[in-house]
Amino acid sequence: MNAHPKGRLIGVGTGPGDPELLTLKAVRALGEADVLAHFAKRGNNGNARAIISGHLKPGIVELPLLYPVTTEIDKDHADYKAAITGFYEESARAVAGHLDAGRTVAVLSEGDPLFYGSYMHLHVRLSQHYPTEVIPGVTAMSGCWSQTGLPIVQGDDVLSVLPGTMSEFELSRRLADTDAAVIMKVGRNLPKIRRALAATGKLERAMYVERATMANTASTPLAEKADDTAPYFAIVLVPGWEERP
Amino acid sequence: MNAHPKGRLIGVGTGPGDPELLTLKAVRALGEADVLAHFAKRGNNGNARAIISGHLKPGIVELPLLYPVTTEIDKDHADYKAAITGFYEESARAVAGHLDAGRTVAVLSEGDPLFYGSYMHLHVRLSQHYPTEVIPGVTAMSGCWSQTGLPIVQGDDVLSVLPGTMSEFELSRRLADTDAAVIMKVGRNLPKIRRALAATGKLERAMYVERATMANTASTPLAEKADDTAPYFAIVLVPGWEERP
Ligand SMILES: C[S@@+](CC[C@H](N)C(=O)[O-])C[C@H]1O[C@@H](n2cnc3c(N)ncnc32)[C@H](O)[C@@H]1O
Ligand SMILES: C[S@@+](CC[C@H](N)C(=O)[O-])C[C@H]1O[C@@H](n2cnc3c(N)ncnc32)[C@H](O)[C@@H]1O
Repeated sequence: MNAHPKGRLIGVGTGPGDPELLTLKAVRALGEADVLAHFAKRGNNGNARAIISGHLKPGIVELPLLYPVTTEIDKDHADYKAAITGFYEESARAVAGHLDAGRTVAVLSEGDPLFYGSYMHLHVRLSQHYPTEVIPGVTAMSGCWSQTGLPIVQGDDVLSVLPGTMSEFELSRRLADTDAAVIMKVGRNLPKIRRALAATGKLERAMYVERATMANTASTPLAEKADDTAPYFAIVLVPGWEERP
Repeated sequence: MNAHPKGRLIGVGTGPGDPELLTLKAVRALGEADVLAHFAKRGNNGNARAIISGHLKPGIVELPLLYPVTTEIDKDHADYKAAITGFYEESARAVAGHLDAGRTVAVLSEGDPLFYGSYMHLHVRLSQHYPTEVIPGVTAMSGCWSQTGLPIVQGDDVLSVLPGTMSEFELSRRLADTDAAVIMKVGRNLPKIRRALAATGKLERAMYVERATMANTASTPLAEKADDTAPYFAIVLVPGWEERP
């Protein structure tokens, strides 16, 4: 039936923003791919796609995978779940069509693909059926603590990575019970994050970083940040390491 | 007194092992440095140094920083603390000598420099006094979950990074209270880690990975690993994400 050998699926981590933080392996994969897929919101090309623009091969087929929702709606609602599942199924079918035709498909992912990345929704649907490779990337959190020169953990420190979406109580409970913390998905959760840090005596140690390693980055100790507005691309860091050798 | 402008200090993340996982920025820094420093144990050139060997500039000055201890001794002992603090002070002075002479010093770090990396002990001693840059790298844990194709966290998952050195009770307590976990520093702690995972009902989900992205890598579901021997370069992963969209 199928005259072609199957194509390869490659999840490509693009790093946090600076195009120089691409790995040599990611650059090679971009040169080998026949099709370049990336997730984006409608009317916005997506950050991962911008990061690799200097390595775009002429003639490559582009496959933008456009989220059906543009604003955050209640994730626990059944309609949301059905829409998003349908979107991932449809995206997997579009990628599979190229793989069946023998084309190698690179799927871009900001940071590292399997660390809170949308790529994983294709990975779990396709990796059993097609030769698949995942190229790890520098995570956003590494970009944040490197840019601000803040050692995050050493020795026997425990690090907790916490989504800013969790309840204030849960955030406080976990902040009280860790050496170091990274709070992802800051955006409109910043007032709540600030209260949880204050409640656990960690506000003075917290660093706020937005758009790390990008041209328009900004960072400040959170206690000195005057307002509570934050973009989607923001992280709050609490370093461990109170006692240093 | 000092005729030279001060040299630059650069912490360079080399990634987990595969030389192709170096970033473009790390490769550029290796080309710009006058001095290349790396931490190692006596009689062992160190992993980070091996990773970058293909990018070694002819004529670069090498500065190996050799740990005074070759086997793990009791870290809470005062003699150990004094020896290790003395070693970091002495290493910082050796690097500062080159910086004062106007030379740019790249300090290699496996994975990401500020994530459990020895580089940070130089960083905290020198970064206030010399122009300093940290180039983030792909962490060992990203190498592990990418190589095994295991999505680690999605959506609102909490990730706990736990050193295998902690007590069995503490390890169990934290494993019971997280969605996903990464256990670092496995080595001789593996029997204890296995018991803690079994006690918390997570052994069946755990993946064991040694020497990720290196030529002699191995990985297996931990429940299927027949023995309890593990090298220093090993990690245990427990993926979150029980309910997928
Ligand atoms: C869906 S997660 C993607 C994480 C990514 N796969 C990684 O490896 O870091 C998106 C979150 O990552 C964080 N983020 C991504 N890029 C960032 C950047 N350049 N600076 C600060 N935070 C960033 C923000 O907290 C954002 O809400
Ligand atoms: C001192 S920490 C260094 C971590 C490093 N800076 C990073 O960013 O991942 C050393 C621990 O990292 C883990 N590790 C480092 N390289 C690894 C590899 N290639 N495969 C598996 N584990 C590794 C092991 O758990 C080891 O005990």
